[in-house]
Amino acid sequence: MALIVQKFGGTSVANTDRIKNVAKKVAKAFDKGNQMVVVVSAMAGVTDKLLRLAEKTGKGSMQEKRELDVLLATGEQTTASLLAMALISMNYKAVSLLGHQVKLITNSTFGNAKIAEIHTERIQEAINDQHIVIAAGFQGCDSAGNITTLGRGGSDTSAVAIAAALKADVCEIYTDVDGVYTADPNICQKACKMDQISYDEMLNMAGLGAKVLQIRSVEFAKKYNIPVHVRSSFSEEEGTMVINEDSGMENMAVSAITQNKDEARITLKKVPDQPGVAAKIFSPITDAKIVVDMIIQNTRSGGETDLTFTVPKQDYKRAMEIEQKVAEEIGAKEVIGDKNIAKISAVGSGMRNHFGVAAKMFNALAGENINIIMISTSEIRISCVIQEKYTELAVQVLHTAFGLDQEE
Amino acid sequence: MALIVQKFGGTSVANTDRIKNVAKKVAKAFDKGNQMVVVVSAMAGVTDKLLRLAEKTGKGSMQEKRELDVLLATGEQTTASLLAMALISMNYKAVSLLGHQVKLITNSTFGNAKIAEIHTERIQEAINDQHIVIAAGFQGCDSAGNITTLGRGGSDTSAVAIAAALKADVCEIYTDVDGVYTADPNICQKACKMDQISYDEMLNMAGLGAKVLQIRSVEFAKKYNIPVHVRSSFSEEEGTMVINEDSGMENMAVSAITQNKDEARITLKKVPDQPGVAAKIFSPITDAKIVVDMIIQNTRSGGETDLTFTVPKQDYKRAMEIEQKVAEEIGAKEVIGDKNIAKISAVGSGMRNHFGVAAKMFNALAGENINIIMISTSEIRISCVIQEKYTELAVQVLHTAFGLDQEE
Repeated sequence: MALIVQKFGGTSVANTDRIKNVAKKVAKAFDKGNQMVVVVSAMAGVTDKLLRLAEKTGKGSMQEKRELDVLLATGEQTTASLLAMALISMNYKAVSLLGHQVKLITNSTFGNAKIAEIHTERIQEAINDQHIVIAAGFQGCDSAGNITTLGRGGSDTSAVAIAAALKADVCEIYTDVDGVYTADPNICQKACKMDQISYDEMLNMAGLGAKVLQIRSVEFAKKYNIPVHVRSSFSEEEGTMVINEDSGMENMAVSAITQNKDEARITLKKVPDQPGVAAKIFSPITDAKIVVDMIIQNTRSGGETDLTFTVPKQDYKRAMEIEQKVAEEIGAKEVIGDKNIAKISAVGSGMRNHFGVAAKMFNALAGENINIIMISTSEIRISCVIQEKYTELAVQVLHTAFGLDQEE
Repeated sequence: MALIVQKFGGTSVANTDRIKNVAKKVAKAFDKGNQMVVVVSAMAGVTDKLLRLAEKTGKGSMQEKRELDVLLATGEQTTASLLAMALISMNYKAVSLLGHQVKLITNSTFGNAKIAEIHTERIQEAINDQHIVIAAGFQGCDSAGNITTLGRGGSDTSAVAIAAALKADVCEIYTDVDGVYTADPNICQKACKMDQISYDEMLNMAGLGAKVLQIRSVEFAKKYNIPVHVRSSFSEEEGTMVINEDSGMENMAVSAITQNKDEARITLKKVPDQPGVAAKIFSPITDAKIVVDMIIQNTRSGGETDLTFTVPKQDYKRAMEIEQKVAEEIGAKEVIGDKNIAKISAVGSGMRNHFGVAAKMFNALAGENINIIMISTSEIRISCVIQEKYTELAVQVLHTAFGLDQEE
């Protein structure tokens, strides 16, 4: 007997037929003698519909954020009650619990609340009483009892956090893909599904554009060492286990190749090389709530330096306007930018123990005459910014170079 | 400065434009220096849509009722948050409170919960803090924190109960009619809007088919002596005050004429006049959860009696089947029934002090050759069952006879 937390996303519960299918899946696991807690998202499309209602009614100001959370929370509330009904109609004991009933206590940052603690008494009581517990994902409440939400995609985080609080044996994330791949299967035909991947690798992949799991949920899973099983709600096949690296994992140098086309590059040319200049360049960007990803400062020559960084494409225009003013102030020569870039990354825990990964990556790209514009590295990741048009080619070449191609 | 509780029904908040109009109405009352608590229903059509979702997912069993309440509660939650947003976007301080936040505590009869108590600390705090409070109607929670609902139309009851708990000066019920009329304006052109009506009269009218106010809300208002103002959300005109009879009300013998076409008549002929026979006739009807309204036992002759009663038309067929079996058992001669009947009632607190009201009613009907099939009376009401085809004629004749016609 195991305690299993399952999470079903919006497409898995998109209509009443799919909700009934989820009920069957849950019942099957329960019938095997497992204790079951199920976390659900809003039915696909519902959250967007609610956002449109809010848009038509309010002005979207900060003051309205508390009320927006009250509104959005109805989405998961609806799914939770429907799934409980479906299970009850199949003669199972089931009970839905909302954020304030689960007692998933958060801070009061409406719209993007952080989990403070989870009081598990009510869930545990229901489990002991042979109930299947259906928890509304994405939502919690602050200490004053106000409804809060965890930010878009927060149901993954709900599921992992509840699994951690209950010391569950596994947290299964059911989604519309059947696992985590060595590369995006849409652009790399030879990509294979991984049986397992470490938390750290997943964190590096999530941040790089692999949209399978919300990054916060992986951080949570790592912190509390909860095995996360990413799998498809539309098949019975095993997916990918996201686990601690110590768990006897084979140490590949590189586990996956990812790409990200969502960023743009901005370069300030001939910046006077003085203390405080970097702060002057980045403070106004931060004030505008624009997230900077990579920053590269080129080799200096004659008291001047070139400084390049990347921002989300959607913020490119604003960032350029800001930096043009900054350049005048600090006396930089010019500001140039480029939206047609892509970031290609090789991710792998084994990188720590394998030499020459970077060299192999640069050689493989050079072999196809792909120019590298920027480079950044972390302990288990090497990322290169290249021209956007080479994205697919670069992914395929690197996938082959690091021996990830599926066997025929 | 007064403390006003306003309630807006489903048609008044049917879309975002109407919600914005409601916000303007509320803001106007607030700007006059009043403290405002607003109770809202689900947007028109939403509750039915949720019921259809539930129908498709579950089996509608008793075990599912807890979950149905969780589902239905999302309707009022949506409206409450949207109205709060609309007010906030107009630069008012507003906060939505759900059943469990208002702390409207009920028993655990899901789907038809009774209010036990209301803890007003949270509402009062918000009011003192210059907030307009938007309370989700129709919903509460039991002492264990489960979401409950008060039964269809329960938002009226929420509003009056909250008004009572807060000792509000008035509870304004905004609806799609502009008040309570002396007769149904659709069938009696001379019907007039009443300026005021007593709780008891309203209770008698509500039970008789005047669907303006939920009967439970009137009982609540009477118990706590809360003046209820029934008025239109689409105009600025005063509606009808439902108040205590002592409040200097003019004592008309008859205040209103109502009709009800929802019942059918069943007669058992030549019932042996023995002790215990009535129990044998009505117990199986009660067991089948059929509500009996009027019961008449005709004068006896030769140890036999005729017994007539009315049931809702929708239960007529089942009731006839039951009584045919009963008739065989007890040795009654035959069972006859009639679905084409209507109940016409004259209602008026003044009836207590006016003689001859009944005689005047019978005379007026006789003057049009309308045969009276059954008669029943309460302290402030006389009801006659007649053939259905005379309904409109009877209402018009009685309206004139009791001097209720609008002056030209």
